[in-house]
Amino acid sequence: MIQTPYLLFLGDAPDQLAAKVAQGIKDWRPDNAVGQFRMPGCNADLGIKNMTLDEAKAAGAKTLVIGVANRGGIISDAWKTVLVEALQKGYDIASGLHNLLRDEDELVAAARVNGRTLFDVRIPSVAYPIANGKKRSGKRCLAIGTDCSAGKMYTGLAMDAEMQKRGMKSTFRPTGQTGILITGGGVPLDAVIADFMAGAVEYLTPDNDPDHWDHIEGQGSLYHVSYSGVTMALIHGGQPDALILAHEPTRTHMRGLPEYELPSLEALRDMALPIAQIANPACVVAGISVNTQHLAENKFEAYLAEVEDRMGLPTVDPFRQGAARLVDALDAI
Amino acid sequence: MIQTPYLLFLGDAPDQLAAKVAQGIKDWRPDNAVGQFRMPGCNADLGIKNMTLDEAKAAGAKTLVIGVANRGGIISDAWKTVLVEALQKGYDIASGLHNLLRDEDELVAAARVNGRTLFDVRIPSVAYPIANGKKRSGKRCLAIGTDCSAGKMYTGLAMDAEMQKRGMKSTFRPTGQTGILITGGGVPLDAVIADFMAGAVEYLTPDNDPDHWDHIEGQGSLYHVSYSGVTMALIHGGQPDALILAHEPTRTHMRGLPEYELPSLEALRDMALPIAQIANPACVVAGISVNTQHLAENKFEAYLAEVEDRMGLPTVDPFRQGAARLVDALDAI
Repeated sequence: MIQTPYLLFLGDAPDQLAAKVAQGIKDWRPDNAVGQFRMPGCNADLGIKNMTLDEAKAAGAKTLVIGVANRGGIISDAWKTVLVEALQKGYDIASGLHNLLRDEDELVAAARVNGRTLFDVRIPSVAYPIANGKKRSGKRCLAIGTDCSAGKMYTGLAMDAEMQKRGMKSTFRPTGQTGILITGGGVPLDAVIADFMAGAVEYLTPDNDPDHWDHIEGQGSLYHVSYSGVTMALIHGGQPDALILAHEPTRTHMRGLPEYELPSLEALRDMALPIAQIANPACVVAGISVNTQHLAENKFEAYLAEVEDRMGLPTVDPFRQGAARLVDALDAI
Repeated sequence: MIQTPYLLFLGDAPDQLAAKVAQGIKDWRPDNAVGQFRMPGCNADLGIKNMTLDEAKAAGAKTLVIGVANRGGIISDAWKTVLVEALQKGYDIASGLHNLLRDEDELVAAARVNGRTLFDVRIPSVAYPIANGKKRSGKRCLAIGTDCSAGKMYTGLAMDAEMQKRGMKSTFRPTGQTGILITGGGVPLDAVIADFMAGAVEYLTPDNDPDHWDHIEGQGSLYHVSYSGVTMALIHGGQPDALILAHEPTRTHMRGLPEYELPSLEALRDMALPIAQIANPACVVAGISVNTQHLAENKFEAYLAEVEDRMGLPTVDPFRQGAARLVDALDAI
């Protein structure tokens, strides 16, 4: 586990979007962030306190989290100066960048000299077991999409937040780098060796209290031919009690696959449920989460109502409406 | 690619079963084996010529293939003496053992000094791409099982052999270590990083002549929760034109999963075909391959006839009956 709280490193982010990992931490785990560190030229601002390394350290920060994408895929010298200084001042560093901290000799040396840890969250740090398929206690929910990037992580985080608000037992279980940085731990499933994918998901979602819900972060789509194997392992390793269907209604084709149309929500339901019931015969499809950001303010409610009527399942945009109705549906299982 | 032909190293195999990789090479690619190398205490015999390293070298052998499982998971000193001598005499070495050749310092040093290559076929040697899902030319057939180890590799090899016999264009495409050693190349799919599984299968089965068949070696089962993600990636990366259902009728539960019953052939067909049609809308289920080795001589034909009648598909045991009727079915597509 990455030690919290964090100082969020925004570097020289060219715009707000480049700092979306930091934004996710600030939105979903504000207590994990004591402040932000901005360099000259930084055009992102989370609206939290600007802090120096010393100020944040005094405020209790344990880890400097790189909350920004790096320009051109290179860890620049300007960044490195800050990162080395942070290690010297006693910070660990966590990163989800494609280029790994561990490949930067200066950082490796500074971490060793100062007894600090570099977390490259894209790379598994655990030797996961082969899945054994044994029924586990506790309940699990998994969002599965008609496509990649349809709002599955957001849905899981929103349901977890709603359960926390109600005093229910609940944990968000990250399977991707952003989720891992937000919560401090998880499994970078897309980087796990094929034979161990389902076992990694079992490891991530162990036995728990009978009334505890794991919200497993979804990945890929059963209908996305590049990544469907990862989705399959999530379903069979996660043995969910409930599936949430996630959809983005304005997509004209599968992400990155111009030749592939999106499936209907009906087709996704009909394919996914029998697959899920192999690992958990009691699994149900409990609700639908729609990312309506590209629908106009005066259109999205009619769209959600139409889907709800057609599918007979609670249908919400958790960003616009919150996840209360999805949690109601889980609570009724 | 591993250079052929081979000298098959049987070491001190305690019994015939321990030499099943060598047996597979001898059965399916006899031209790849100039002879066998047996050590004192070897109880396996392929019925081919015993040769010294020098004799096999003179007969043209390029690679010493470890065709036997090692006792206790250790590459013994007795083995190492032979392997080092082979490297000195100009052989490459290929192995599918769990313990890697590259982890043995003596072998690494001898390979370097003599300019030879160590092939650990369990480990990918290629940086596979992310799958792009683009339709490829040529035809592909994939065997999928009601369970793991239901005869999928055998079925693919038998169909390939039958097509070769008929002068059809055909290639067996290995996705596991035994298949890779038999043919000299392939993708060790269970060791590929999750995100690249389907891309590895695309890489393995590229564009080909319109009348050429790839027989892709199957892995796992959609119904086997430990490995179903690998199977999914095979279906979506392989975009098969034809599926063969593989079944072992005496299994009482999924291999290694005592809590899981096997699916019916109908259930497998109904789950697999819509999944396959995502990547290739023209895909059909073309036939059924049953491993009847545990059915009595006077029972197996009645069983096959019953399945054929029930499923309406040509149903054979390719070991007992050959794969001619399965190839007839593909040829009619």
